[in-house]
Amino acid sequence: DRPFALLAGPCQLESLDHARMLAEQIGRAATERGIPFIFKASYDKANRTSLSGKRGLGIEQGLEILATVREEFGCPVVTDVHDVEQAQRAGEVVDILQIPAFLCRQTDLLLAAGETGRAINVKKGQFLAPWDMANVAEKIASTGNDRIMLCERGTSFGYNTLVSDFRSLPIMAETGYPVVFDATHSVQQPGGLGGSTGGKREYVPVLAAAAMAVGCAAVFMEVHEDPDNAPSDGPNMLKLQDLPAVLDRLKALDAITKG
Amino acid sequence: DRPFALLAGPCQLESLDHARMLAEQIGRAATERGIPFIFKASYDKANRTSLSGKRGLGIEQGLEILATVREEFGCPVVTDVHDVEQAQRAGEVVDILQIPAFLCRQTDLLLAAGETGRAINVKKGQFLAPWDMANVAEKIASTGNDRIMLCERGTSFGYNTLVSDFRSLPIMAETGYPVVFDATHSVQQPGGLGGSTGGKREYVPVLAAAAMAVGCAAVFMEVHEDPDNAPSDGPNMLKLQDLPAVLDRLKALDAITKG
Amino acid sequence: DRPFALLAGPCQLESLDHARMLAEQIGRAATERGIPFIFKASYDKANRTSLSGKRGLGIEQGLEILATVREEFGCPVVTDVHDVEQAQRAGEVVDILQIPAFLCRQTDLLLAAGETGRAINVKKGQFLAPWDMANVAEKIASTGNDRIMLCERGTSFGYNTLVSDFRSLPIMAETGYPVVFDATHSVQQPGGLGGSTGGKREYVPVLAAAAMAVGCAAVFMEVHEDPDNAPSDGPNMLKLQDLPAVLDRLKALDAITKG
Amino acid sequence: DRPFALLAGPCQLESLDHARMLAEQIGRAATERGIPFIFKASYDKANRTSLSGKRGLGIEQGLEILATVREEFGCPVVTDVHDVEQAQRAGEVVDILQIPAFLCRQTDLLLAAGETGRAINVKKGQFLAPWDMANVAEKIASTGNDRIMLCERGTSFGYNTLVSDFRSLPIMAETGYPVVFDATHSVQQPGGLGGSTGGKREYVPVLAAAAMAVGCAAVFMEVHEDPDNAPSDGPNMLKLQDLPAVLDRLKALDAITKG
Repeated sequence: DRPFALLAGPCQLESLDHARMLAEQIGRAATERGIPFIFKASYDKANRTSLSGKRGLGIEQGLEILATVREEFGCPVVTDVHDVEQAQRAGEVVDILQIPAFLCRQTDLLLAAGETGRAINVKKGQFLAPWDMANVAEKIASTGNDRIMLCERGTSFGYNTLVSDFRSLPIMAETGYPVVFDATHSVQQPGGLGGSTGGKREYVPVLAAAAMAVGCAAVFMEVHEDPDNAPSDGPNMLKLQDLPAVLDRLKALDAITKG
Repeated sequence: DRPFALLAGPCQLESLDHARMLAEQIGRAATERGIPFIFKASYDKANRTSLSGKRGLGIEQGLEILATVREEFGCPVVTDVHDVEQAQRAGEVVDILQIPAFLCRQTDLLLAAGETGRAINVKKGQFLAPWDMANVAEKIASTGNDRIMLCERGTSFGYNTLVSDFRSLPIMAETGYPVVFDATHSVQQPGGLGGSTGGKREYVPVLAAAAMAVGCAAVFMEVHEDPDNAPSDGPNMLKLQDLPAVLDRLKALDAITKG
Repeated sequence: DRPFALLAGPCQLESLDHARMLAEQIGRAATERGIPFIFKASYDKANRTSLSGKRGLGIEQGLEILATVREEFGCPVVTDVHDVEQAQRAGEVVDILQIPAFLCRQTDLLLAAGETGRAINVKKGQFLAPWDMANVAEKIASTGNDRIMLCERGTSFGYNTLVSDFRSLPIMAETGYPVVFDATHSVQQPGGLGGSTGGKREYVPVLAAAAMAVGCAAVFMEVHEDPDNAPSDGPNMLKLQDLPAVLDRLKALDAITKG
Repeated sequence: DRPFALLAGPCQLESLDHARMLAEQIGRAATERGIPFIFKASYDKANRTSLSGKRGLGIEQGLEILATVREEFGCPVVTDVHDVEQAQRAGEVVDILQIPAFLCRQTDLLLAAGETGRAINVKKGQFLAPWDMANVAEKIASTGNDRIMLCERGTSFGYNTLVSDFRSLPIMAETGYPVVFDATHSVQQPGGLGGSTGGKREYVPVLAAAAMAVGCAAVFMEVHEDPDNAPSDGPNMLKLQDLPAVLDRLKALDAITKG
């Protein structure tokens, strides 16, 4: 019943300056509204639709940038990891390790992430029912680490489409772990553009608002100053300039829900 | 951008006294909160899962009760119709004719309903995409009647399950017609009990809250003083005693969304 | 374990001559292969996607044509009915009454059809699980008429798409009633063309072959000499010229399955 | 248009003797029918539903057993790999590397597998459309290795359920790569037993038959002499004693399809 936190940033790290700019501007928008802010960015897009999609700066440079942002802006940082070794390396730098949805059932990755002692944000697989996330959380908790967050990011619904089932939020909350709603990946149309994933940016504020009214601990959003020219996830990222109005609305809804 | 209206009442008419009791109590809860109230009840459950399900009082007695409630309580009334003749007869009594989801593509029924000049609330078929409701509305509008409401009540999602896609609300709103969210049928589990339809009543306030945050013109809810012993839709009807708290929350959320 | 029967004909009746031509040609292709043939055609398309879709010749003229075909070619005929009165009227002319998928839960229609004593082919709703068809059959059987066929025609799968779940055939067969596979509606893309329903004709032989290998009592196919210019269901009807090769393959597969 | 091959074996390796017994018996059943046989078994179940599920013998011992089976029985062997290092190690032993469905979008794994020069069987993710597998194949082919097989193993359909869309087979075949149908995982009910995955073994022959009638290059089936006591995938594995009759039927259907 605490106010929601914001996990936000670009889909992928582009450069230190770009990360700084977004951390500064998103951070300011959040802080001005009393919303706890965690900077999110990926150093590697390990599962692009096609080989021609840009993968990112790599773990070495990526973790350096995240460490710099963390220090300069004093905000926690979150990034996603794809194998045991990445979990260990990223675990030395970031505050929250994120498990990608496709990988949420990979036992070794979950255990390695848990063993870092960092908080873990697990995305619910598009192929999983919300009640099945209890088993996923239990794998992590078996390491003695119970700093777990469960994240809804859309469920397979026919081909090239996801649907957000908002019953998922209270169902996952029954585990006792905080629940996060990922408002930008939820509007993806996987593979919808043939060689890349499409999306409907206009529904990001719609679904985020629904999540606030239903109740969740945090909202995850990928934000970019120029999504249409971003190296990945352009169609579903929120425009930076639209963020303040969205946060105002979410904050007001959250206050009603948790009031 | 006007405050939401409430379409509510029992799934099926049981007796005049029962209808009076519910109209009085639901109406009071709504009116005290400044929420426009439309009494809803069915005279015939024409598509029960199995033959042993109770069908209701029939159109003759049903319309009489609805007319009485309408006059005694001064509230508009809405009921569902299943064929051309029913549309004509009910259209002489009720304020809003409702087209059941399974029947939302039956052209003759839509035209007959439209020709009564009454307002029409069309439930979106569980098998239809939200954008396909524009064609449905157009059938009704071809009669010169544009008092149309489009109602989301859940979409087929695997077997015996519905999912509420909240993108549906803004998509249907693009038609220009007001959009209604049916919060009790959306939690049905069709056929989920073998010989009858199951449901998860606890998600009614959850989904209604999401709808308010997304924005809609009205909420539809079946309400009963003792759902577990109601002749139909027990598992998904809201308990009468829970209505006031639900309305308080919806009203607060609606004010944020439309403020 | 008897060889499969073929229910086939145009989506809608266009004229007596057109019906004659198709009954003659489809009938010959079937008879030459020892496949029992039932001529299928609709006199009214009561649930077109949009109002501008052609509805057909109407029940009066339609039943006359069906009676003529039945007498001239000596084949049974099947047509779909949409309300109680139509069931009664068509029941005096045709051998098999068909219940459309959208209407498979309308109790009065099922009872009226059952009471004609004719055989009834019920399409499984796109929104229904296969095991739920037992309740549907029971409604008809309550009239004392057990000449019931249950027909798979695709299940909602996301928006504007159907999927054919072939487990459905043995599941529905557990009722003891013969199971029909509708190979042309199963490849529809409902609403997929905006104002009308799309489809993928090339998958008709694919899905029909799968049904034969799984085992079913009959195959339903809409067939037209020029589907691209047919008044309805063009994208999913089989071309008449392709029918003989398809029947050859189905017959060979059916012989393996039932051998 | 060559006769189908059989990829079969236990879900997980249990011991050398157990592997020998199954390779011998499955191999004999296949060979007697002129069906090319590839022995399949996993050394690690890396994504069990819950932590308490048995994971297997590990890569060291597992590859030893596979190498022994390969030599003793003269049959090719296939196993699944979960990361780059495993792909490299297994690639030195087995004939076919298999990419698990959950991992079919992990670019590094696909590239590492491709670089071994071994044949690659990629399972289509439960969250992927069949046409999206062209992008997956292209990643592997970028390594210069075009010995690629694309495998249908069911698609998410609501919660805890998969559906087999047989249009998927011809769609994936448009890539030019051979298509495999996995008949045992397709009948899984993921997470359906709470702490483990359920399944409906009785539909294995049903779906395999459908695949043969539609046309595919190979069938994948997990087979066990006592599935109910197997360490994993018991509910969906085929009983060894049922294999000969199933192969007879598949062979007959395949001959029709490819004749």
